Amino acid sequence: MTNTRTPYRTGVWLVGARGSVATTAIMGAAGVRDRITPTTGCVTESPDFAAAALPAFGDLVFGGHDVAETSLPKRAEQLAHAGVVPRQLPDLVQDDLTAADAEICPGTPAIEADRSQREIATILARDLRSFRERHELARVVVINVSSTEPQPDSRPEHAELSALEQALGDTVTNGQNILPASSLYAYAALQAGCSYVDFTPSLGARLPALDELARRQRLPYAGSDGKTGETLVKSALLPMFAARQLRVLSWSGTNLLGGGDGENLADPTNVTSKTASKQRAIGESLGYPVDGDVHIDYVPDLGEWKTAWDHISFEGFLGARMSMQFTWQGCDSSLAAPLVLDLARLLARAHETGHTGAVEDLAFFFKDPLGVEEHRLIPQYEMLRSFANSLGRTR
Amino acid sequence: MTNTRTPYRTGVWLVGARGSVATTAIMGAAGVRDRITPTTGCVTESPDFAAAALPAFGDLVFGGHDVAETSLPKRAEQLAHAGVVPRQLPDLVQDDLTAADAEICPGTPAIEADRSQREIATILARDLRSFRERHELARVVVINVSSTEPQPDSRPEHAELSALEQALGDTVTNGQNILPASSLYAYAALQAGCSYVDFTPSLGARLPALDELARRQRLPYAGSDGKTGETLVKSALLPMFAARQLRVLSWSGTNLLGGGDGENLADPTNVTSKTASKQRAIGESLGYPVDGDVHIDYVPDLGEWKTAWDHISFEGFLGARMSMQFTWQGCDSSLAAPLVLDLARLLARAHETGHTGAVEDLAFFFKDPLGVEEHRLIPQYEMLRSFANSLGRTR
Amino acid sequence: MTNTRTPYRTGVWLVGARGSVATTAIMGAAGVRDRITPTTGCVTESPDFAAAALPAFGDLVFGGHDVAETSLPKRAEQLAHAGVVPRQLPDLVQDDLTAADAEICPGTPAIEADRSQREIATILARDLRSFRERHELARVVVINVSSTEPQPDSRPEHAELSALEQALGDTVTNGQNILPASSLYAYAALQAGCSYVDFTPSLGARLPALDELARRQRLPYAGSDGKTGETLVKSALLPMFAARQLRVLSWSGTNLLGGGDGENLADPTNVTSKTASKQRAIGESLGYPVDGDVHIDYVPDLGEWKTAWDHISFEGFLGARMSMQFTWQGCDSSLAAPLVLDLARLLARAHETGHTGAVEDLAFFFKDPLGVEEHRLIPQYEMLRSFANSLGRTR
Amino acid sequence: MTNTRTPYRTGVWLVGARGSVATTAIMGAAGVRDRITPTTGCVTESPDFAAAALPAFGDLVFGGHDVAETSLPKRAEQLAHAGVVPRQLPDLVQDDLTAADAEICPGTPAIEADRSQREIATILARDLRSFRERHELARVVVINVSSTEPQPDSRPEHAELSALEQALGDTVTNGQNILPASSLYAYAALQAGCSYVDFTPSLGARLPALDELARRQRLPYAGSDGKTGETLVKSALLPMFAARQLRVLSWSGTNLLGGGDGENLADPTNVTSKTASKQRAIGESLGYPVDGDVHIDYVPDLGEWKTAWDHISFEGFLGARMSMQFTWQGCDSSLAAPLVLDLARLLARAHETGHTGAVEDLAFFFKDPLGVEEHRLIPQYEMLRSFANSLGRTR
Repeated sequence: MTNTRTPYRTGVWLVGARGSVATTAIMGAAGVRDRITPTTGCVTESPDFAAAALPAFGDLVFGGHDVAETSLPKRAEQLAHAGVVPRQLPDLVQDDLTAADAEICPGTPAIEADRSQREIATILARDLRSFRERHELARVVVINVSSTEPQPDSRPEHAELSALEQALGDTVTNGQNILPASSLYAYAALQAGCSYVDFTPSLGARLPALDELARRQRLPYAGSDGKTGETLVKSALLPMFAARQLRVLSWSGTNLLGGGDGENLADPTNVTSKTASKQRAIGESLGYPVDGDVHIDYVPDLGEWKTAWDHISFEGFLGARMSMQFTWQGCDSSLAAPLVLDLARLLARAHETGHTGAVEDLAFFFKDPLGVEEHRLIPQYEMLRSFANSLGRTR
Repeated sequence: MTNTRTPYRTGVWLVGARGSVATTAIMGAAGVRDRITPTTGCVTESPDFAAAALPAFGDLVFGGHDVAETSLPKRAEQLAHAGVVPRQLPDLVQDDLTAADAEICPGTPAIEADRSQREIATILARDLRSFRERHELARVVVINVSSTEPQPDSRPEHAELSALEQALGDTVTNGQNILPASSLYAYAALQAGCSYVDFTPSLGARLPALDELARRQRLPYAGSDGKTGETLVKSALLPMFAARQLRVLSWSGTNLLGGGDGENLADPTNVTSKTASKQRAIGESLGYPVDGDVHIDYVPDLGEWKTAWDHISFEGFLGARMSMQFTWQGCDSSLAAPLVLDLARLLARAHETGHTGAVEDLAFFFKDPLGVEEHRLIPQYEMLRSFANSLGRTR
Repeated sequence: MTNTRTPYRTGVWLVGARGSVATTAIMGAAGVRDRITPTTGCVTESPDFAAAALPAFGDLVFGGHDVAETSLPKRAEQLAHAGVVPRQLPDLVQDDLTAADAEICPGTPAIEADRSQREIATILARDLRSFRERHELARVVVINVSSTEPQPDSRPEHAELSALEQALGDTVTNGQNILPASSLYAYAALQAGCSYVDFTPSLGARLPALDELARRQRLPYAGSDGKTGETLVKSALLPMFAARQLRVLSWSGTNLLGGGDGENLADPTNVTSKTASKQRAIGESLGYPVDGDVHIDYVPDLGEWKTAWDHISFEGFLGARMSMQFTWQGCDSSLAAPLVLDLARLLARAHETGHTGAVEDLAFFFKDPLGVEEHRLIPQYEMLRSFANSLGRTR
Repeated sequence: MTNTRTPYRTGVWLVGARGSVATTAIMGAAGVRDRITPTTGCVTESPDFAAAALPAFGDLVFGGHDVAETSLPKRAEQLAHAGVVPRQLPDLVQDDLTAADAEICPGTPAIEADRSQREIATILARDLRSFRERHELARVVVINVSSTEPQPDSRPEHAELSALEQALGDTVTNGQNILPASSLYAYAALQAGCSYVDFTPSLGARLPALDELARRQRLPYAGSDGKTGETLVKSALLPMFAARQLRVLSWSGTNLLGGGDGENLADPTNVTSKTASKQRAIGESLGYPVDGDVHIDYVPDLGEWKTAWDHISFEGFLGARMSMQFTWQGCDSSLAAPLVLDLARLLARAHETGHTGAVEDLAFFFKDPLGVEEHRLIPQYEMLRSFANSLGRTR
């Protein structure tokens, strides 16, 4: 039941460590390690990844940042009550939840007062180094699973690392933040020698200055915006319309979300980055503009569940008008958590085998994949499979 | 507006030549040739096929077998009235419809009386040769777009060509048919030196004896069961569930069909081969059995349109139960007709470049692709694209 | 927590007493009595019924017939595990479940051997009388919530009570059953002075001979086939089309059922009576025939849940074709159980106030209401409301 | 084919007379009169209205205000092309379209320059009187079927007729409009002795000052916001949830509209009054607040068609969570036009029989019925039926 210390022990540091996705991921990793739950939903458990020499589920050690105070065991109870995880699972992996909870440090909002962003980053990086040393981890992957943040303005300091570092020191004086929280976490992660994944649509590491830092530190990073529902289905269906030369006229979508994510996204300021990344795939996949809006509604009674309805109108041969609708009823945490574990394993191995900068071959996991125009799900999977094979050959 | 005689003139011989699909295909080919309609829905008009040296739309000459007596111009009017094709199109391509109608010969039910199946095949083959010679065609592709026939019993004579040919001669004596109509058309086509495509789920050329004949005659054939609606979507969605390691628990479907196809398929005898080929893809794609029924209902008021509803329940990480539904509202003829033209062009070129036997690389088009286990739509498309490239390189 | 003996204590005798619906009803009655659960879903808890002088939830005493051996406490655990009832409820009403379980007698299949149907009926009636006396009940309502049975052949003995009673005695000799089980229970109930409700589409009391018996015994009966899902929605939507003079062209439905009900109804022999009663409402409501099939599929993984999809095509002004679809995702037991309690309360009061024969004013509850052509839900509700008022005035 | 002059000749004056709804209504009235189209969708053609002594379709004479310049025959052609009305209908009723088109006067935007609102009203009223006299009409019903206007601010002058009339004269001086266009039309109509119906959610006659005017003039008026799609279905389904004591937790809706209506409503200023009246029915019907948003999206390719998707989550007995979804695919003009004719006939007869002020018994037709809390469709129908009976008895 306890982890043996191996040279492959890998830290998984979750920004938003007490949220539903993080809690589900931590429980799931323990459950799979102990063979009390199946690996359904874990992409890297397919035979296609058998030779990639990924860290085992039992090699993963969890910690993270959060400002929430509900403990992981308590949060796990809530998820079991809501039917997200089996009722008895929190008890069975109680030790793992307690251990991970003890590794959670206060997040940025809790340490901001009177500090420059450079000072905050130093604290965050120190938390990461301390975690790695305390557990003798071969390496640590930082994954942002916190709430979506408002899309920040672009700034000149984002273009170059030296200018960025200069500016970060001045933030306390001028009262302005140079980096949004997601990017500050990315900066701290890279400073501390950790790879970084953004599972949210937030800015994260997507800045020339941070790319420069990642390359200097010889670290890989990946993102952004985990593909867990409507966009997953879109990326499976869009290539069908394209390959069949059917002309999509409009693609409209409504997402009903309960839980914290819904409440956050219902704020029109935050929602922009989310809906923008959702619609981007359509135009880029088809090569022509398509009408239609995407709505995200907060519907509290849906709890951990979400329902998406999409309506697609399209034109066929000789102008015939046709349509398709789909409804997707899923549990966000159940869909996201295994991907978080997949990404932790893949990034750790990518780090080990010397990949630096944005890892484009992970596009399969993201709504808004870094550096890739390929939005077709199955070609993305083939890219991922080749990547896994290359990881296996490296050592 | 008239076809110039070129060395690439290609015959397209449609079994069921006065049906909706055939009529739409004939109108469409003329409309595209004359640039009065766009090529929406034609797969082979993608840039991916530009180098494949396929016959031009203007090189296609139409004829066929049918027992229906409603003329093509009349049928075209009905389709325009039903909104399947633009209202003015039948008038604009009137000459083409009249010319093709003049090439339609009586189908098997009209020539069966007191003849052995061998004699019937001789008449069918004579029709084909006469059509090819009369129009100085480089080659002819026979495509079965007639109604689905009941699934025939397997017979020992199907295993070997010599036994089959022997038995065909005896059919008048013993009153039993050795081959169902679709296979008799395939036999006649191959005898006459024509390639053959089965766009229906009927038996067609899928017999060892007919494969033997195709190879002896150095002819390609393809099939079966054009993928135009629910199964098209299935083949786009199933790989999503598979790649994400989500476990599909049940996949249920209801198809509401109007028109002649619906009436025919509502007969439980015919429906078996159709629903069997529909469900086959699920098990083969996922590698494990999945619950669920498929219904095909005849709903006359839907006319040329069909509506399919599918419900998929699946399990995610840690046992979470989720579901997806989709509704597909399409026009069968509009979806099928461009594929018929695509297949005519591809088979003609495959014939020209020396392909013989079942052309497996055309799996993209079919619900029940010959000789292929790959049911994932986009990998099927990649197979097709490679095939198109190879066709281009051959000459 | 215990029932005080009042002059209004009412027995509720459930045929199929260990099934999901019965178990949920028994738990719910106790929960509502103890004010630990709200009365959501109980029609008779509307203020419209306040003056009807119905027995209180705390006045209901449960027993029944069943051949299943899974005890009520065990069955309740399963329902809590499946999310049908709150997790802690079975424990909170443990005493009630145990008490009711002790009142369950073996059902007909367990007592058939070598007995005539008259002898079986005598045993069943004895069980009922014994239950009533043991608990000093003012009266007992027998409610059939067992599985749907195959539609039996009509027989001449069904027309008249004396002929029926004669024939029942002869069944052991000739090896044939005169009555299906549902009707045998109805016969026994009426013999024992109990009112009877058929919540299933089975034959039950719908026979001239049993109506004669009910009138002779001065007992009310009601049925049949509780309206809990697709048909409930139909009865709300059909009047909309009718009042708006929109012409319904087709109404097609697919029902996906898990659990025991699904398995039973997937048998085509049983399904007939179910789908027949489902489609009857459409024609009778609209006054003209409508196309469309209804399917009932058994999809085991849905468990206690069911999903219905209906597709309606209709014609509007000047022939415009329009359509509507709906999906209903419900839990059968949660929908049926409160209606069972409603019917128990209403029948008990109807019995008390001297109603005899079929109670037509309860049409609101049934897919196939006895003796009523009114299939519009809200007019049915108005009938029910008037009935409730009349019940209040009687005493 | 021509109208004979009868004492019951009734003018129907449409504000927005060249829009889709008006054009469809004018064509339909002629088609029904000439018995070349059925009366599907006309509520007043039910036998329930046979005794109400309504004006015949052939007694209706059409005119109206509009600023659009596309003539009615041209607009009719477009509707036939879009499949809204039968292809041959515009030709068959060409004379009626031309005659009505000749009766269309410029609407307010065309006559506003440098005039006070009182002067504009005088011009509008003069148009109405002239129309009535020219055609020797017994009476005229003015019906607003123009685009939805932004919700105006409430003003003190709206409270009393004398203050309103005073203020209307001053509008040119202070550059402010006292009344929105819909209310100015209502004022002019009442001034000219015509009844008024608002088929849109605009303010129309819903002002104390205009109610005072209607009563003084002894004229009836009705409104507002014709119930043609999503809300129609809502008003059929909400009573189902209420009668069954099921607790609706959320009701979310997305409306995809093409055509001019969609474009207008996509403007967030106009949309407020529309979505507000859509959601009002839910709270008032159920008696408790319900979560959920309503979206109206403009999707140009849908043309004259609209698609609404609604998702309802609800709670049943013992807290079970269930859901329902529906999709409504309709043609707005086909749904609205027969109701416009129904309202013209009913208002004319109400006027004739001496009804004054808001006619509450017409709630059946409206999303936001004047003066009525009853939102249940079928009880609204029963109110309407009684009203029709009373109309019949009056004379």
